[in-house]
Amino acid sequence: MSRSGVTTIRVRYEETDQGGIAHHSRHVVWFETARTEWLREMGKPYLELEQQGVRLLVSEVSVKYHFPAFYDDLLAIETRLLSARGARLQLGYTVTSPRGELVCTGNTTLACIDKERGRARRLPDFFLEGDSPLVKSSPE
Amino acid sequence: MSRSGVTTIRVRYEETDQGGIAHHSRHVVWFETARTEWLREMGKPYLELEQQGVRLLVSEVSVKYHFPAFYDDLLAIETRLLSARGARLQLGYTVTSPRGELVCTGNTTLACIDKERGRARRLPDFFLEGDSPLVKSSPE
Amino acid sequence: MSRSGVTTIRVRYEETDQGGIAHHSRHVVWFETARTEWLREMGKPYLELEQQGVRLLVSEVSVKYHFPAFYDDLLAIETRLLSARGARLQLGYTVTSPRGELVCTGNTTLACIDKERGRARRLPDFFLEGDSPLVKSSPE
Amino acid sequence: MSRSGVTTIRVRYEETDQGGIAHHSRHVVWFETARTEWLREMGKPYLELEQQGVRLLVSEVSVKYHFPAFYDDLLAIETRLLSARGARLQLGYTVTSPRGELVCTGNTTLACIDKERGRARRLPDFFLEGDSPLVKSSPE
Repeated sequence: MSRSGVTTIRVRYEETDQGGIAHHSRHVVWFETARTEWLREMGKPYLELEQQGVRLLVSEVSVKYHFPAFYDDLLAIETRLLSARGARLQLGYTVTSPRGELVCTGNTTLACIDKERGRARRLPDFFLEGDSPLVKSSPE
Repeated sequence: MSRSGVTTIRVRYEETDQGGIAHHSRHVVWFETARTEWLREMGKPYLELEQQGVRLLVSEVSVKYHFPAFYDDLLAIETRLLSARGARLQLGYTVTSPRGELVCTGNTTLACIDKERGRARRLPDFFLEGDSPLVKSSPE
Repeated sequence: MSRSGVTTIRVRYEETDQGGIAHHSRHVVWFETARTEWLREMGKPYLELEQQGVRLLVSEVSVKYHFPAFYDDLLAIETRLLSARGARLQLGYTVTSPRGELVCTGNTTLACIDKERGRARRLPDFFLEGDSPLVKSSPE
Repeated sequence: MSRSGVTTIRVRYEETDQGGIAHHSRHVVWFETARTEWLREMGKPYLELEQQGVRLLVSEVSVKYHFPAFYDDLLAIETRLLSARGARLQLGYTVTSPRGELVCTGNTTLACIDKERGRARRLPDFFLEGDSPLVKSSPE
């Protein structure tokens, strides 16, 4: 199981604004796409988690914007596991432009929720199991 | 019961693109907001319809763009009932800029769906009742 | 030069709505992404067209929705050239789900605009040249 | 000149996701709408600032989500000035549901940019002038 993964995203015309750059709200959406792909690579598509009654709800997000992303840029987004404890998962993201610029860094805290009851629940063993590097992980 | 209604929408910065105008996909979203407000004015908020097990699903949409909408424009959107028959509702929209320009015209066809069964069902009587102007209406 | 091309798009969680399906406005955005990829495959990235002072502005769009697209679906979108004449380009789209369902069909009419002057201009020769299949093409 | 202001936003159907709540990226967009309205109330529409060659670029955003926002909720968004110094503006936001729930709190840092040169510049006097409460303000 990999503690980090990289996915690529192409900036859509619709994602730009009249300032000529990708709108700052899109980075939050890209983080979501990046963690979706990270989960898929780990063999646990988010779709399956939801079908098994688990939801990962964003409880905190922060982004620092360093350099604009432009239309048609093929961005590389790295997702890193920062911590997984109890009902809480913390992930970090780094977005890099095709020109090698650091576009932004960010973090999300995700709360693991039981879909039926709408209440916090322990993360699936998958995230927490003893022989997993996740247990030893700690936030940056 | 009113066969048409007007609502206003302020163009958000996020809705613009690097061409300096509102992105053409937003007009489809504005139509949705406009019909939501039209239903509310008629005393039938869409939220209530969904709570009563009815969904109005878009089965067709068309838009003709005449003039760009710009950031911060306070647009007037007129929603008109074109027809209501069986499980099918047709609405027309006209979007006008604060400068009086015709921004776009459009149509949507909505299919009335039973939420539980996921199948087409008759529109609520509200749309079809005998003393309603809706019965006499016809598509443009 | 190819008159049609296929690209794939993964439905984002953000693109779903509380009805449990991809929101109908997203299909219009996917058409844009599909034609962007089609232009790239043909060796004419839209970014280059804009840098050369040409903009393709959507003047009409229509969509018929046949089957919902769901979260995480890897959709296939076919873009077909319907016609290219003067300042006007017509494209058709067919979106198919990974289950083989026809999600939607649609058309866009694009107006070729001189960016500086903001006025209609002839499509670049690329779209119109004599030995191109485009010249013989006609709208559906 | 008011250091804080409240605006309302109606949650659009398009803004919900299949989890049945407003998608967490939308809160970032609502912050933008809220500060746009706050600037308008203060007599300095953002549109005017851009026309005068000034851009306010988001350099940091953070959100803590406390309670979901639902379709059709009429949310109250309070914008508060946290600090205005040199080229940097910090704003805080509190989003409240019509049921009185605290939906989220957040902050944005905005960098004042000279549009022509694309470089940081001093905030307009409007934000900094001596008899303004802004000068005495400090970050939370």
